Amino acid sequence: MEFPSELIEEAVREISKLPGIGKKTALRLALHLLKEKQATTEDLTEALLKLRKETQYCDTCHIISHTTDCTCRTINTDQSVICVVVDTPDMLAIRSTGQYKGTFHVLGGVISPIEGVGPEDLHIDSLIKRVQESAGEVQEVILALSATMEGDTTSFYISRKLEETGVKISTIARGIPIGGELEYADEVTLGRSIVTRTAYLSGE
Amino acid sequence: MEFPSELIEEAVREISKLPGIGKKTALRLALHLLKEKQATTEDLTEALLKLRKETQYCDTCHIISHTTDCTCRTINTDQSVICVVVDTPDMLAIRSTGQYKGTFHVLGGVISPIEGVGPEDLHIDSLIKRVQESAGEVQEVILALSATMEGDTTSFYISRKLEETGVKISTIARGIPIGGELEYADEVTLGRSIVTRTAYLSGE
Repeated sequence: MEFPSELIEEAVREISKLPGIGKKTALRLALHLLKEKQATTEDLTEALLKLRKETQYCDTCHIISHTTDCTCRTINTDQSVICVVVDTPDMLAIRSTGQYKGTFHVLGGVISPIEGVGPEDLHIDSLIKRVQESAGEVQEVILALSATMEGDTTSFYISRKLEETGVKISTIARGIPIGGELEYADEVTLGRSIVTRTAYLSGE
Repeated sequence: MEFPSELIEEAVREISKLPGIGKKTALRLALHLLKEKQATTEDLTEALLKLRKETQYCDTCHIISHTTDCTCRTINTDQSVICVVVDTPDMLAIRSTGQYKGTFHVLGGVISPIEGVGPEDLHIDSLIKRVQESAGEVQEVILALSATMEGDTTSFYISRKLEETGVKISTIARGIPIGGELEYADEVTLGRSIVTRTAYLSGE
């Protein structure tokens, strides 16, 4: 596509570097900013720059935080359990269920030989150290990774590493989603949901 | 959704003001920028600010241009015909077909009483003036607006205004898209394609 101005060409090139945004969407966004007040663009760019420059990560759990009081150190958080997640959105999703009050540990990715990501690129060593140094305060580690090949590999690797610490290791339940129809469930999930069946609680 | 940091909350709020981007996508984009090098964010924000601050519009045809040589004044452009479009993407789409070598005129919107857009908010007067002041050089005005109620209203209004100038007024052809199946065409389009049938050219 030939653009009427170098400015718009440059903006479209930069915007379309973002994941999931193609050239057409980038052009639409650029033209939208041109129609809005200058302050809209200024607020947006300032927020992005500030985010990139000032964001820090907690040394303990690797959650994003720009202050030194990370949620993993606050009193309301249950320090006896660590939920291991791949990245921030997973943590937010689990926290917003309201069913979990413990701490988190962000891995920053999954083991993927194809993409050249090994265990040393993830925050696994710091998880082991965290469990060891808690001197028994951490009683359970919940592995909350995706049920993909990479996720399962990573879960397996972490569980082997954690074995020597003697901490209880659990994983989030896999099964038929609530509201899901049995008929449309895939065989693997359905099979697993029978193997890992749980006691029936009335009112569930 | 509760965010782990005010910086990310602020960035998500600003990003999700863009059209078609919700909070989840905004969070994904913000986390992407955090993972990339700082230069990526700097290049993006610089391009956006530059676009918003330095973009100018041609006085004649209202196309975006940051220099004074707008395409409407270059020698290679056919000055005898003006194609009227709603906005820049429409112009780019027509230009990229390679079938049109004339000038453009960007209206900046369509007449829409519901949204409070009247003829005086669009670049209609400047179009009339442009045709009048060309002293016969402009021989044809092509109306290339969408076939919606607002587009048709705007086309009708412009055609009435242009009548007194004596310029030839045409509109882009409406009909069955090339590659389209008759069976699936809507009745209105099919009916119009019969009424406005054209001479058969072999090789078409």
